[in-house]
Amino acid sequence: MATTDRIQNSYLRSKVMSADDAASLIKSGDTVGMSGFTGSGYPKALPQALAGQIEAAHKAGDPFKIGLWTGASTGPELDGALAKADAIKYRLPYNSDPIEREKINRGEMEYFDLHLSHVAPMVWEGFFGNLDVAVIEVTGVKEDGSLIPATSIGNNKTWIDCADKVILEVNDWHDERMEGMHDIYYGTALPPNRVPIPMVHANDRIGQRTLRCDPHKVVGIIKTDLPDKNAPFPPLDDVSKTIAGHLMEFLKWEVQKGRLTNKLLPLQSGVGNVANAVLAGLRDSPFHDLMAYTEVIQDGMMDLIDDGKMLCASSTAFGMSDKAAIRFREKLDFYRDKIILRPQEISNHPEVIRRLGTISMNGMIEADIFGNINSTHVMGSRIMNGIGGSGDFTRNAYLSCFVSPSIAKKGDISTIVPHVSHADHITQDVQVIVTEQGLADLRGLSPKRRAELIIANCSHPDYKPQLEDYYERAKKNALGLHTPMLPSEALSWHQRFLEKKTMRA
Amino acid sequence: MATTDRIQNSYLRSKVMSADDAASLIKSGDTVGMSGFTGSGYPKALPQALAGQIEAAHKAGDPFKIGLWTGASTGPELDGALAKADAIKYRLPYNSDPIEREKINRGEMEYFDLHLSHVAPMVWEGFFGNLDVAVIEVTGVKEDGSLIPATSIGNNKTWIDCADKVILEVNDWHDERMEGMHDIYYGTALPPNRVPIPMVHANDRIGQRTLRCDPHKVVGIIKTDLPDKNAPFPPLDDVSKTIAGHLMEFLKWEVQKGRLTNKLLPLQSGVGNVANAVLAGLRDSPFHDLMAYTEVIQDGMMDLIDDGKMLCASSTAFGMSDKAAIRFREKLDFYRDKIILRPQEISNHPEVIRRLGTISMNGMIEADIFGNINSTHVMGSRIMNGIGGSGDFTRNAYLSCFVSPSIAKKGDISTIVPHVSHADHITQDVQVIVTEQGLADLRGLSPKRRAELIIANCSHPDYKPQLEDYYERAKKNALGLHTPMLPSEALSWHQRFLEKKTMRA
Repeated sequence: MATTDRIQNSYLRSKVMSADDAASLIKSGDTVGMSGFTGSGYPKALPQALAGQIEAAHKAGDPFKIGLWTGASTGPELDGALAKADAIKYRLPYNSDPIEREKINRGEMEYFDLHLSHVAPMVWEGFFGNLDVAVIEVTGVKEDGSLIPATSIGNNKTWIDCADKVILEVNDWHDERMEGMHDIYYGTALPPNRVPIPMVHANDRIGQRTLRCDPHKVVGIIKTDLPDKNAPFPPLDDVSKTIAGHLMEFLKWEVQKGRLTNKLLPLQSGVGNVANAVLAGLRDSPFHDLMAYTEVIQDGMMDLIDDGKMLCASSTAFGMSDKAAIRFREKLDFYRDKIILRPQEISNHPEVIRRLGTISMNGMIEADIFGNINSTHVMGSRIMNGIGGSGDFTRNAYLSCFVSPSIAKKGDISTIVPHVSHADHITQDVQVIVTEQGLADLRGLSPKRRAELIIANCSHPDYKPQLEDYYERAKKNALGLHTPMLPSEALSWHQRFLEKKTMRA
Repeated sequence: MATTDRIQNSYLRSKVMSADDAASLIKSGDTVGMSGFTGSGYPKALPQALAGQIEAAHKAGDPFKIGLWTGASTGPELDGALAKADAIKYRLPYNSDPIEREKINRGEMEYFDLHLSHVAPMVWEGFFGNLDVAVIEVTGVKEDGSLIPATSIGNNKTWIDCADKVILEVNDWHDERMEGMHDIYYGTALPPNRVPIPMVHANDRIGQRTLRCDPHKVVGIIKTDLPDKNAPFPPLDDVSKTIAGHLMEFLKWEVQKGRLTNKLLPLQSGVGNVANAVLAGLRDSPFHDLMAYTEVIQDGMMDLIDDGKMLCASSTAFGMSDKAAIRFREKLDFYRDKIILRPQEISNHPEVIRRLGTISMNGMIEADIFGNINSTHVMGSRIMNGIGGSGDFTRNAYLSCFVSPSIAKKGDISTIVPHVSHADHITQDVQVIVTEQGLADLRGLSPKRRAELIIANCSHPDYKPQLEDYYERAKKNALGLHTPMLPSEALSWHQRFLEKKTMRA
């Protein structure tokens, strides 16, 4: 178990208590802001203790529920445990836990997925009501009461600043040598007092190493020694490799045309197989001295840093496999000046993203022939995870690319459809779409030229004739021929899938 | 006619020529970047001369066409004349000319409406190809060859910098005393060389008074004395006044809750009846010391300045009625330090908008029950104008509000629909929806709570039962109950309108 060494402030050392005692400080109806972004840096002991207490309360007839705010997704000990206990009334801003997803899609839980850059300012502006308790996992507490963050920052600064009470989990599992890898910027403000964020390179440090925290707000500290749990990445598949290959060719073309150099521009990459394949593709590319300005540092970015291909990666969280977590510890001193973790209001800030000019690569559920993107809703109604930071990046990127295999569910779903069943990213925010079939460079194209290119280059051969057939009829029969669309048919592919379990005609 | 006094540089004075001679310098296939944003500051003589030459070429069997880029919409002498002459192959980034709109919707013209903040950087980045000629209306030419801008700035700086050749229209109609009201910022760059934009208040001046221009790029100067043509505003109607009243009540509520002060935050307002009603509503409000950070300065903003209610309005263009244009001249010395015109890459820059925290009020074609907004496409396919700057503002605003009457076409169209036929603004970018029926404050609400509120507060009584009926069935039958949506019915209201000329069941 943890020693008290990690808590160097004597006043705060007096606040150490059991997870059960700390959990009992949270009351039904409280809104609780917890740390955590991907399976990193989320509290692990308190949520499980709280889930137990809430289950007991429910058995006793008490309809105990809380509002839960985090950075983004967390691990099974947090979202999973609380969802299983039916403990969450309201959740923001992102979830990928399967139990919680089911509850949300059965209509049993309120969920609001918002742009990750909007969360901290809107909470501070008072748009979502009072934050009662913050529960934050940290690596340690300094003598002056400041906090050494763990493997994610997320909204921790905002939760600590805005909450009435603070509960800490000091987790010995985190390596104390991480101190100094975090960059906490305290220069944000509410309008009319906002000033420029003084960052001009992805690797600029503009803040301080630790989180400020008023010790008198701390009502409990729990000592833990529990690992982060990130889902392992499956090995690279051929489809992902092919998609990555198309994107590499495109980037080389941009260098050849003089629009990029071999240093590219800061990379933002969503999480997933295709993203990892792209990162793997960069290892064997002519590109060098790369930077990342992104939300999550995945295994693939660490590989690039190991290779000397990437100079620095800036994010708000790690999303490391168990294997990468071991490597991270072994080589921590090497990574120290090459990785920066920031609050998500900075990692996702439109001002910084627009200034740096990121190359953004994000996955999608489906794209329509005009280049609108659905990132969140299966068949328009069933939420998968949430919009996350994709909107922060895509509208402000230098190049916004969306990647996906052209089919899903063994070919019963075409990811290129006549009309997205839910729109998260509009055509104006999408410059490039890539599937294993090919790449569509949509820059400057009118809707009809976009449609022709997406159908020709990105759609699966099994669905191409169906898309061509729809589009030809739309060009004849639509009310307007600027964006030829037939309301009677636009969503018929989704309806067919609901009825016949396939989009095939 | 104009004297040569307005051209103080002797080298450039030698470039004066007729509009016909200047137009003949433009060749078929050229991409031409013209000035103009709303009916302000657009070239008036050259486009008409060019239209004449192109009509003659067409009669002679020459398929003469150009690509046309502007700031946003222009006047009938530009877009109207060239569209009538069938002179435009490709148009960006915005159009509101009725002849051109018809051509686009008949599929006879390529049109790409993009975020107005994206235009200048993407052109500079080379994403849309070479710019052959810039045609810029100015108020005068200084001895050092720099240019005094006219009643709009738009993309003029970028067109002058990027074009191979420059043609100027020096328009004596513009008041020379405008010199000094413009603020041309030359600090933008391409990544990785971008730095913070040093603006922290809407009335900060960060640039210079004139446009730089290499005299050796100037191939012709046309002297004109022709008025801007902005559409007159109709008198305020009761529906618009009611909508404005709801919004005023909401803003007062926000002040009462301590989330705003009576100075509010910089206002951004779309163009149109409702926007003008809102501005009129502010005249009789308790709000004071207001600022505007917007695209277009309309009559209503000048009223607020006249009243002493508004300290400063920053925009990229005037959109004054003839009456307001006369008033502007009469009181120019009064307005001089209260109005700033900037390049649209600054007036619409996400960095600045997010920093200032605007209160954004934009019109819409339709909203769906979840709060997605269609700003551009009638029945999903027929473009009205374009997305303009609405996307730049809505995602970065402090508060993003959309306003519209709840019905259109004498009640045959409900502007609140089950599912938008085209999405321009996603729910995450929409905090408030207002119709004459009422206001829906959507902050922090899950999709179902949004739907309940929008149907209850914003829909027209004639359509409310129909919306409730759809939504109740969606909550029973949708695949996912997070965003209950039925693909078989979601666009049926639009289909019904296409078939029966009414959305009524």
